[in-house]
Amino acid sequence: MNFSDLFDTTKDLRMHSVPHSQIVVSSRVRLARNLHQKPFPGWAKKSERITLMEEMKSAVEALPEMALAFSERMENLSLLEKQVLVERYLISCEHAQKSFGSALVMNTHQTLSVMINEEDHLRMQAILPGFQLKEAFSMIAKIDTALEERLAFAFHPKLGYLTACPSNVGTGMRVSAMLHLPGLVLFEYMNKIINAVHKMGFVVRGLHGEGTDAMGNLFQISNQTTLGEKEEDIIQRLHVVIEQIIQHESNARVILLKQKSEELEDHIGRTYGILCHAYSITTKEALNLLSLIKLGIDLSLFPADVSHDVNALLIEVQPAHLQKRAQLPKTTTKIRDSLRAKLIRTKLKNLPKPLLL
Amino acid sequence: MNFSDLFDTTKDLRMHSVPHSQIVVSSRVRLARNLHQKPFPGWAKKSERITLMEEMKSAVEALPEMALAFSERMENLSLLEKQVLVERYLISCEHAQKSFGSALVMNTHQTLSVMINEEDHLRMQAILPGFQLKEAFSMIAKIDTALEERLAFAFHPKLGYLTACPSNVGTGMRVSAMLHLPGLVLFEYMNKIINAVHKMGFVVRGLHGEGTDAMGNLFQISNQTTLGEKEEDIIQRLHVVIEQIIQHESNARVILLKQKSEELEDHIGRTYGILCHAYSITTKEALNLLSLIKLGIDLSLFPADVSHDVNALLIEVQPAHLQKRAQLPKTTTKIRDSLRAKLIRTKLKNLPKPLLL
Repeated sequence: MNFSDLFDTTKDLRMHSVPHSQIVVSSRVRLARNLHQKPFPGWAKKSERITLMEEMKSAVEALPEMALAFSERMENLSLLEKQVLVERYLISCEHAQKSFGSALVMNTHQTLSVMINEEDHLRMQAILPGFQLKEAFSMIAKIDTALEERLAFAFHPKLGYLTACPSNVGTGMRVSAMLHLPGLVLFEYMNKIINAVHKMGFVVRGLHGEGTDAMGNLFQISNQTTLGEKEEDIIQRLHVVIEQIIQHESNARVILLKQKSEELEDHIGRTYGILCHAYSITTKEALNLLSLIKLGIDLSLFPADVSHDVNALLIEVQPAHLQKRAQLPKTTTKIRDSLRAKLIRTKLKNLPKPLLL
Repeated sequence: MNFSDLFDTTKDLRMHSVPHSQIVVSSRVRLARNLHQKPFPGWAKKSERITLMEEMKSAVEALPEMALAFSERMENLSLLEKQVLVERYLISCEHAQKSFGSALVMNTHQTLSVMINEEDHLRMQAILPGFQLKEAFSMIAKIDTALEERLAFAFHPKLGYLTACPSNVGTGMRVSAMLHLPGLVLFEYMNKIINAVHKMGFVVRGLHGEGTDAMGNLFQISNQTTLGEKEEDIIQRLHVVIEQIIQHESNARVILLKQKSEELEDHIGRTYGILCHAYSITTKEALNLLSLIKLGIDLSLFPADVSHDVNALLIEVQPAHLQKRAQLPKTTTKIRDSLRAKLIRTKLKNLPKPLLL
């Protein structure tokens, strides 16, 4: 697979709609694994890292799930390409900084990606659209089992899988879901949710993980602990928590439609008007406004379900995607804000206008 | 003339364009006069007020300028009709509260209006579009002279015309201009202007006179003193001050176009988008946003000069005008905000879209 194919959101199967995808944008399971008696990437010499990387890369490429995969050493990717991958949640910010001795292998559908020599030797993830935590876990567990047949993983009978950072020891699993919660934000209910979720051992973060603001009313919820609990139990507990959040968000939306329908129409109408006529727009504002358009579509304030197009825009308005599309070797914030406004205007022109207005 | 004719802005000759009308929206001269040895309206008994009112009303109606005039006793006007007159600057808020013993006479073009038994026996004004202070003064001086032949005015050889409030004694004249100054507001230059103008003996106020906020970047500038200076000299001095403000505003607009053209296009584009798609909008927000559309038209960011339509909207979005148009016996703020948004959407749909966007 060619890198440019990654850029075409119409080929991104993660964009296809599935049950509960209005509120749960995506489900993700990531496993951290390390090779038995080999130094962690942060401790290894460059030559060791390269040798291990080549070995793991071949093993991953050999998996039937990775047929026709995109597979590349990190030094062969440009800064811009790495940033595009980050914006699609295919690699981490940390991995984007890697060069010699690190690699990425991912499948055609962009649902499976394996980072080689990130913080751990292997960070493998499955990401699916909508509320599909269990399905994502099955997918990645299959990869894990297949790789374990080819590679010796560092495993301690009492602790479980060993990892570079102690916070991942045990299952090595981070399971997360991206939720779109404009109703709970509008009713200023998110702090309550965050506190409640925290008490149950899960953590809520913004769009791009730790330390980032919640933009576009998008929240990532994930497990904090990897020790002392089976994978299936963690996933089941998170599943129940998310079901409850979905219920709260759905209720908030019903109340919005019933009690505040005029305010809502006004709010969404203005948002649509700004997006159709702005000449310059930041990523943050674009995500926040597109989030309201997404809400309007979910609430049938638009004559057709064009959430696929809006979901694609939420990815495409991000800085690296914009620069890639414009084929510019360099951009400034100002140029990107202008490109972003133009892209949104062009795309919205082809979508149906909101009803009633 | 029928009251409903007042409501049709296409018949309002004050809307026609004249030189400098981009920055100077209108020019107004008002004279306060009282009858010799008759009690001021605030001191007179009801029966006295009625007798004097009928006498003055006949005298005003007899003027050739008032042929086919709209002439009415205040008790015959509804609250809503009075409010429409206030929104058009044809009567004062104080006069809108009058009933038996007070009256209004105005010409067909709505350029001349005479309030009978407001605070003074006669408050007569000429209002013209654009920068026409001297022309407005000529018009009202003619009425004043003609009335003085029929009615004995209270005049003191040393003080001049006597008035109910000492602040009007002398010329009894208040001369004012309504200026549209979005450039100076955007550059945060208005406080400097207000202070400088104040030092020259003039005062700057918001849209509806004393104690009102500046909405829609509209400012009223008028004389403070009525004693010790001839009418022509006051007008000449104000004329010079306004010429300077026009120069400053024009400079600000040139700088906006040169240095901030992208911000300006973005700002005006978003404003247009909001106005085309809002579902609820307050008077204040509507005036502020329409002010920017007006600026965009002045700066040729629209393909045609539709300032006449926008000037009309600035009047029509006001509460009483909206209620009158909807023919509702009662409204609430919420209903008016929704009617206002609908009116603006409908009107803007028929106007050309901004260029470049």
